[in-house]
Amino acid sequence: MTTVGILGGGQLARMLALSGAPLGLRFLVLDSVADACAAQFAPLLQADYRDQAALAEFAARVDVVTFDFENVPAESAGWLAERVPVFPSPRALAVAQDRMAEKTLFRDLGIPVPPFAAVDSRETLDAALAAIGTPCILKTRRLGYDGKGQFRLRGPADADAAWAALGAQAGTVGLILEGFVAFQRELSVVAVRSREGELRAWPLTENWHVDGILSASLAPASAEPGLQRQALEAAGKVAAALDYVGVFALELFLRDGVLLANEMAPRVHNSGHWTIEGAETSQFQNHLRAVLGLPLGEVRPLGHSCMLNWIGELPPAAPVLAEPGGHWHDYGKSPRAGRKVGHATLRADDPQELAAALERVGRALGRQAQVAPVAARLRGA
Amino acid sequence: MTTVGILGGGQLARMLALSGAPLGLRFLVLDSVADACAAQFAPLLQADYRDQAALAEFAARVDVVTFDFENVPAESAGWLAERVPVFPSPRALAVAQDRMAEKTLFRDLGIPVPPFAAVDSRETLDAALAAIGTPCILKTRRLGYDGKGQFRLRGPADADAAWAALGAQAGTVGLILEGFVAFQRELSVVAVRSREGELRAWPLTENWHVDGILSASLAPASAEPGLQRQALEAAGKVAAALDYVGVFALELFLRDGVLLANEMAPRVHNSGHWTIEGAETSQFQNHLRAVLGLPLGEVRPLGHSCMLNWIGELPPAAPVLAEPGGHWHDYGKSPRAGRKVGHATLRADDPQELAAALERVGRALGRQAQVAPVAARLRGA
Ligand SMILES: Nc1ncnc2c1ncn2[C@@H]1O[C@H](COP(=O)(O)OP(=O)(O)OP(=O)(O)O)[C@@H](O)[C@H]1O
Ligand SMILES: Nc1ncnc2c1ncn2[C@@H]1O[C@H](COP(=O)(O)OP(=O)(O)OP(=O)(O)O)[C@@H](O)[C@H]1O
Repeated sequence: MTTVGILGGGQLARMLALSGAPLGLRFLVLDSVADACAAQFAPLLQADYRDQAALAEFAARVDVVTFDFENVPAESAGWLAERVPVFPSPRALAVAQDRMAEKTLFRDLGIPVPPFAAVDSRETLDAALAAIGTPCILKTRRLGYDGKGQFRLRGPADADAAWAALGAQAGTVGLILEGFVAFQRELSVVAVRSREGELRAWPLTENWHVDGILSASLAPASAEPGLQRQALEAAGKVAAALDYVGVFALELFLRDGVLLANEMAPRVHNSGHWTIEGAETSQFQNHLRAVLGLPLGEVRPLGHSCMLNWIGELPPAAPVLAEPGGHWHDYGKSPRAGRKVGHATLRADDPQELAAALERVGRALGRQAQVAPVAARLRGA
Repeated sequence: MTTVGILGGGQLARMLALSGAPLGLRFLVLDSVADACAAQFAPLLQADYRDQAALAEFAARVDVVTFDFENVPAESAGWLAERVPVFPSPRALAVAQDRMAEKTLFRDLGIPVPPFAAVDSRETLDAALAAIGTPCILKTRRLGYDGKGQFRLRGPADADAAWAALGAQAGTVGLILEGFVAFQRELSVVAVRSREGELRAWPLTENWHVDGILSASLAPASAEPGLQRQALEAAGKVAAALDYVGVFALELFLRDGVLLANEMAPRVHNSGHWTIEGAETSQFQNHLRAVLGLPLGEVRPLGHSCMLNWIGELPPAAPVLAEPGGHWHDYGKSPRAGRKVGHATLRADDPQELAAALERVGRALGRQAQVAPVAARLRGA
């Protein structure tokens, strides 16, 4: 009997547990809140990630550790790794936690990236601005998610406002200035690497964000084979450099035929949720297979899938469930503004069919704006 | 927040809970044993099915009740149904629990059945034998499963042995004598009926038994459309007659182009496990959708699937996981002779591919005999 410890008890941990159950696995979730939604289907150890006694109990009760949440303190991950296998490794985690470290790695590996520079004072901000130009984005190096901790600068005159917004964090989580990419599309590649170094990547996924939060994903993205190759190559280089084990995502900007790497998520990723129904093996099961040293499952897509994120609150499920190929994912969370509370996946053999299903669902739920860009892409616009 | 109560905490309850989680459901399982395998992923109320206080607590904690195990005492189901919705209804359950009642219903509905007669004494056994002839099978009317409680009679001389084996149960669970069907194939149809009376049936499945226990299922069965229609018609008549809500299976014998009904299972069924990966919507999720009054999901198959049952103990998982389209289901049970401890599903777009995968797995696991009849059917033998 193998018990998998998961740091963090959100929807990712929940879906990991649900997809790992058929492998005969048991789970233990470590989270600081009592109502962590994964705890509805897996035992919970409620404690702070820095609580040594809790970490010791956690280590004693599990056979392997992985993550729902990448911003676990590096020391906690390191402490655990001395006692029990931790995948991905604390080193991979440390790189992915820090926008500076990950962008530097990408650049060193020859992966295209937007121009970027570390910012640790008002002076280095001005220097970075001079070097990178505007438009650009000032971001926290660590702990950002869903577009939080970001400030967009349209021109040099925005430097004061940017510094006022984020300057206080220069000494804590650090800051980075990035050139703004006038991308045509946002894409991601979700890939899995085994303990033996085998890499498999699901097809490129196109993503749409609203207010910095993922709104919809379409897979396979309608993209030339050349782009899929570029993405796979980038994913392979990063994974090999970090000796990465498990699932990860690379978020990419497509500009004029080139993919620029934005960031890496060292875990299963929201843009891979469509794989539950839309691929032979889901990202969740393949992550567990990798972490446990089991053979990786096939990543080929089953037709065309679109994932719609439900943010803040759930719409009614019936219009989605009534669709052929309509699948519902309620994370069992209470509603709260900006919170990811669930998603739906629509699947169809044919892109036109999928577009029609999206439009029906969009109308039924009054969410035409959410589905419109995806339907337009499917219709070849 | 809706809580589904499940009577029985075996693998069916476990798979119901896992597939119901994405619908935002909570579960409560009632079982008499502490290590019921569903309890690894759902809260357990440990009690006897006849324990009134426990039933009262169960009724108070759930919004709707369904079954993992059909041999729950009819009085307990009835008692619950006075307090909370129970699907399928206690009446449907009562009919399906009794081979005499179900065969009588089938016959009354014009569904072909083997000849049968109730047996309640040595005299009625002799009379039934004279009417039905040999070969035939004496079975307990109630509580039989996996071929238990059956005695085959090759000739009239076997009557003494049959009575010695089962006669004592004539006064408790009752007995039935059935003509032995020299079938060419065993098939089943798994179907779901909504609260509104909508019926959907997954494609006909072919089944192979070893020692009375299901060994392998293949879906879609290679069968003429006429047979699928026959099966669907039979399923529709039975479900309508019982005002059935939820998933059920009809086990069928194919003899000379005619489907004879063997029995009905008033729950998700082992011959429908392939639907988890092999159909757009699984039997587990559609059962829950039906029970909760949600729209039914599409039942069309995704390619060709074969389910292999693991009885007694699990073989190594790796050869299955290494197959494209290989999926593993460990029920988290301890090994025990004759116990269903897990299953695997192999899925492929093409029947020849599936045959090849089965043969590879059969060789790797030393289970050539288990896969051989399925591979032969796929190869058109
Ligand atoms: N350099 C950039 N150029 C253009 N747009 C950007 C840039 N960086 C971020 N964005 C936009 O902001 C969104 C969120 O940015 P980013 O992925 O860096 O933040 P995050 O908080 O880590 O988000 P997530 O949690 O979705 O990964 C991106 O998906 C993109 O739409
Ligand atoms: N009348 C019959 N003629 C021929 N074979 C039969 C007959 N009844 C049962 N069998 C064989 O025995 C197997 C088990 O019988 P049956 O389905 O009645 O028992 P069960 O204990 O309810 O099994 P299960 O739990 O698999 O439903 C059948 O699948 C079939 O192979």
